[in-house]
Amino acid sequence: MSRILLVGASGTIGRAVHAQLSPRHEVLTVGRSSGMHQADFSRPGALDALFAAVGPVDAIVSTAGNLHFGPLADMTAEQFNQGLQDKLLGQVRLVLEGQRHLRDGGSITLTSGILSTEPIRNGANATAVNAAIEGFVAAAAIELPRGLRINAVSPTVLTESLESYGPFFPGFESVPAARVALAYQRSVEGAQTGRVYRVQ
Amino acid sequence: MSRILLVGASGTIGRAVHAQLSPRHEVLTVGRSSGMHQADFSRPGALDALFAAVGPVDAIVSTAGNLHFGPLADMTAEQFNQGLQDKLLGQVRLVLEGQRHLRDGGSITLTSGILSTEPIRNGANATAVNAAIEGFVAAAAIELPRGLRINAVSPTVLTESLESYGPFFPGFESVPAARVALAYQRSVEGAQTGRVYRVQ
Repeated sequence: MSRILLVGASGTIGRAVHAQLSPRHEVLTVGRSSGMHQADFSRPGALDALFAAVGPVDAIVSTAGNLHFGPLADMTAEQFNQGLQDKLLGQVRLVLEGQRHLRDGGSITLTSGILSTEPIRNGANATAVNAAIEGFVAAAAIELPRGLRINAVSPTVLTESLESYGPFFPGFESVPAARVALAYQRSVEGAQTGRVYRVQ
Repeated sequence: MSRILLVGASGTIGRAVHAQLSPRHEVLTVGRSSGMHQADFSRPGALDALFAAVGPVDAIVSTAGNLHFGPLADMTAEQFNQGLQDKLLGQVRLVLEGQRHLRDGGSITLTSGILSTEPIRNGANATAVNAAIEGFVAAAAIELPRGLRINAVSPTVLTESLESYGPFFPGFESVPAARVALAYQRSVEGAQTGRVYRVQ
């Protein structure tokens, strides 16, 4: 029975991760406007306040983060920066703060995505951000102290999201969120670090 | 004889690229405070003004960009964001603007670095940023119109920089900037797109 902080708990993946982990662990859910704890990470001090409220944890799982999708021809630097600030820096901030609030041997699991290695049209921001997250995980893994671990889960398009996102992913096999959730369990309960679990 | 815009021309790699390309091409040098054209890309409109001044080009080469180096344990989100804004978004902005000012069949060459795939201590920001640049290049390559190409050059530590950076790269083989410059020539004068030329 571990204490797990789950950020992005209200999303499709977040709900599946919660269902997978909650029978065996104490899962503390965090969302922008829902969950046991509310936090807007773009507000300075929000993470400090969150960790002060929840106390030490054994694992941090993030399934949160928005990207910019759109044609490269029209993309602006401001749009590209939105994905950098939200899905990339948002998750990095969680690691930089969270490393001090994890118990010895604890773990962090971030979320990247199949576009890190399989680009699609309209996906330049997503590929860059997801590749950066996977790079960050590999680099952070060699520096974390006290047996702390860090991994990423890289899902393909979700079966539950095919109606909205399917046209962006022609010919891609989808996976149900419940299968993706298993990878988060592997990361949290396994012993590896610096890994990307691809569910694709 | 092509017209090549070289951004970051005053750096160690930039000078070597200039020496390699200038015998056969018209190289237009750009720097923050030196070169034929001065531009501070953090100022809105600076790139518009630059391209208005230089006119259409056949190639854009960027050897510019700063990263944050420091221990993960002390790193702040603001420090991490510096590398995102400078080396990553700075080069992405050059692509997003530059794609409209390249002649048909023109090319863009960005600079990543060995840390994208070979993390070192103090290098979490560098690994994330360099991996993002390589991802962005792969994704942008499939969307660029009019036969436009995009590649990245990923050098290891430079022999010329060993005195300052050597201690960060224990056991890494260095390469002289003149060897790295060949990869930029391959990208500019070759026919490939979406490639990372690793000089490591």
